[in-house]
Amino acid sequence: MAPTMEDQQMMRGQYRVVVIGSGNWGSVAAKLIASNTIKQPIFYDEVWMWVYEETLHTGEKLSEVINQTNENVKYLPGIKLGNNVIADPDLENAVKEANMLVFVTPHQFVAGICKRLVGKIRPGTEAISLIKGMEVKMEGPFMISKLITDMLGINCCVLMGANIANEIAVEKFSEATVGYRQDKEVAQRWARLFSTPYFLVSIVQDVEGVELCGTLKNVVAIAAGLVDGLDMGNNTKAAIMRIGLREMRAFSKLLFSSVRDSTFFESCGVADLITTCLGGRNRKVSEAFARSGGKRSFDELEAELLQGQKLQGVSTAKEVYEVLSHRGWQGLFPLFTTVHEICIGQLPPSAIVEYSEHTPNFSLVEGSALYY
Amino acid sequence: MAPTMEDQQMMRGQYRVVVIGSGNWGSVAAKLIASNTIKQPIFYDEVWMWVYEETLHTGEKLSEVINQTNENVKYLPGIKLGNNVIADPDLENAVKEANMLVFVTPHQFVAGICKRLVGKIRPGTEAISLIKGMEVKMEGPFMISKLITDMLGINCCVLMGANIANEIAVEKFSEATVGYRQDKEVAQRWARLFSTPYFLVSIVQDVEGVELCGTLKNVVAIAAGLVDGLDMGNNTKAAIMRIGLREMRAFSKLLFSSVRDSTFFESCGVADLITTCLGGRNRKVSEAFARSGGKRSFDELEAELLQGQKLQGVSTAKEVYEVLSHRGWQGLFPLFTTVHEICIGQLPPSAIVEYSEHTPNFSLVEGSALYY
Repeated sequence: MAPTMEDQQMMRGQYRVVVIGSGNWGSVAAKLIASNTIKQPIFYDEVWMWVYEETLHTGEKLSEVINQTNENVKYLPGIKLGNNVIADPDLENAVKEANMLVFVTPHQFVAGICKRLVGKIRPGTEAISLIKGMEVKMEGPFMISKLITDMLGINCCVLMGANIANEIAVEKFSEATVGYRQDKEVAQRWARLFSTPYFLVSIVQDVEGVELCGTLKNVVAIAAGLVDGLDMGNNTKAAIMRIGLREMRAFSKLLFSSVRDSTFFESCGVADLITTCLGGRNRKVSEAFARSGGKRSFDELEAELLQGQKLQGVSTAKEVYEVLSHRGWQGLFPLFTTVHEICIGQLPPSAIVEYSEHTPNFSLVEGSALYY
Repeated sequence: MAPTMEDQQMMRGQYRVVVIGSGNWGSVAAKLIASNTIKQPIFYDEVWMWVYEETLHTGEKLSEVINQTNENVKYLPGIKLGNNVIADPDLENAVKEANMLVFVTPHQFVAGICKRLVGKIRPGTEAISLIKGMEVKMEGPFMISKLITDMLGINCCVLMGANIANEIAVEKFSEATVGYRQDKEVAQRWARLFSTPYFLVSIVQDVEGVELCGTLKNVVAIAAGLVDGLDMGNNTKAAIMRIGLREMRAFSKLLFSSVRDSTFFESCGVADLITTCLGGRNRKVSEAFARSGGKRSFDELEAELLQGQKLQGVSTAKEVYEVLSHRGWQGLFPLFTTVHEICIGQLPPSAIVEYSEHTPNFSLVEGSALYY
């Protein structure tokens, strides 16, 4: 039933949003959100954006320049965020009035931020995490959404997808997936907050599946980069991506029985995998690694090629490998296993598509109940 | 239970294979098969290959040169097929002893070939079709496997996948999917016949799903090529490929309730889609079409870019469109619909990712029961 005029009056400005983080993706998220809050009455027009304060080479403060120019001159230059975006370097102040928290920082900062927010959150607050690359510990994945829920005592959805920030910033068509645990209405509100005509957001009741996609795809991207560096062609690359998707799905389902197959057909699944395996920094460094015949290390190539950005696929491959060996599952995941063994120099790059005695026997688990 | 020595003796050479067709993919198929028949006792060593006879510019007959050199000098030069491949220009003679027929000709020749084979097939013969690009008539798809079954009264499986013939010819790693209707044992036998360490074949009980993948992906490749020609980037391309995969799945399931979701995770689904949208002739011509702003026709570009090879995506898009409009389903398939309307010049190439009044509303059917 559509809300009555009176309902609408009551709901007006009910939801106040803060974006926690102001890097490249955080700035694009703020732009998407601000374009909606100003149009949809249930949202309060202004969007706060917490800025980890930096002094620019001009001597100015980043947050002040954002508020003066309406641009994040450092992380998203040339793009207007919307006049209703307010940069704030004071975390506690930024979240004070908010009841919708959007987490979009590097993952290693989340715990510290949550610690500072304990006891400072309004009742009924909801959170969403846009952070890809949670850690996979030996006992299982350490979900960012769960960390936020546990530390702050609030519900937390996730938003993942084929989302290259700079492409969305210039309003090129793309999609994303919101994963939620229980409350569909909350998920729909998040979708309303992010959706624009060029950014389509769908919702699925599968937090873990969506969040794991965002991490595990980086391991597959390493494999895809190796195939590129070996000049194996599109056929082999497609096969490796497909096997990677299958292992992502099987790994997620083994760890969380609630994970759904259909999630892997969403933007967070197949589409993000494609984007990451076509472009993406993991693919790029891995290609260079294969071209060097495995002689140069990932660390060295990362430093040379990524200008300070970090590579997640190699460390995720290691973490996944630890889970697999801890549980005796290596045989079930030949691609994940082989990627790690190549990264640490135990196997040559060509092992990703070799069929020798130490081969990844990709056919091993074909048809196993695990996958159907 | 493993067959006893006595069983093996009885089964020895029991299955005789003929490859009907000797183009690029047919020659590679013969090579794969011949490498197995010579090793596996249940298959008769020699593999017949029916050659549509041609006189080469040297004046020699193609079939004779294949038998002398063990190479298909015209369609797969430089690759040895195996000494146990026997080229035969006489169709009736080639199939005479066979009980495993491998169809791998252009699709427009199948009916004519079957007509010639009526009454000339051994009892208990099985067939498989490697032919992609069946027609989609207004009343539904006209499956090649069904045509073979109907005309010859024999069971027919299909084999599809991310299979660029020239890459498989040089033994680069790839995969394929066999779709079967009822008899799993027959499907397993086909998988044994084709599988090599570098060519992994899985089987799924879903003939229609597998066969439709091989056709519908070409429509998605047209969309992907448009995105390339518009320089929209990997994000948009991944989104369009994902939406295309979703429409392939939904269309197949609406036409055949037996079609399974899991089929689209197989090589014939997501992997073939990726290969076709990365390389492939449909993508290539469509990119050129978008770069011309839709001013040059597909026919003209096809003639210029493909040196006589034919483009299937445009005609398939038209056929699919006829099914959709006949059944009133256009609204459910915005991508398929838009591709056709762009191909015929009714919409500009940019419509594939536009969000205007005549937009493909890709979000329209998100979450509909159709897709889950």
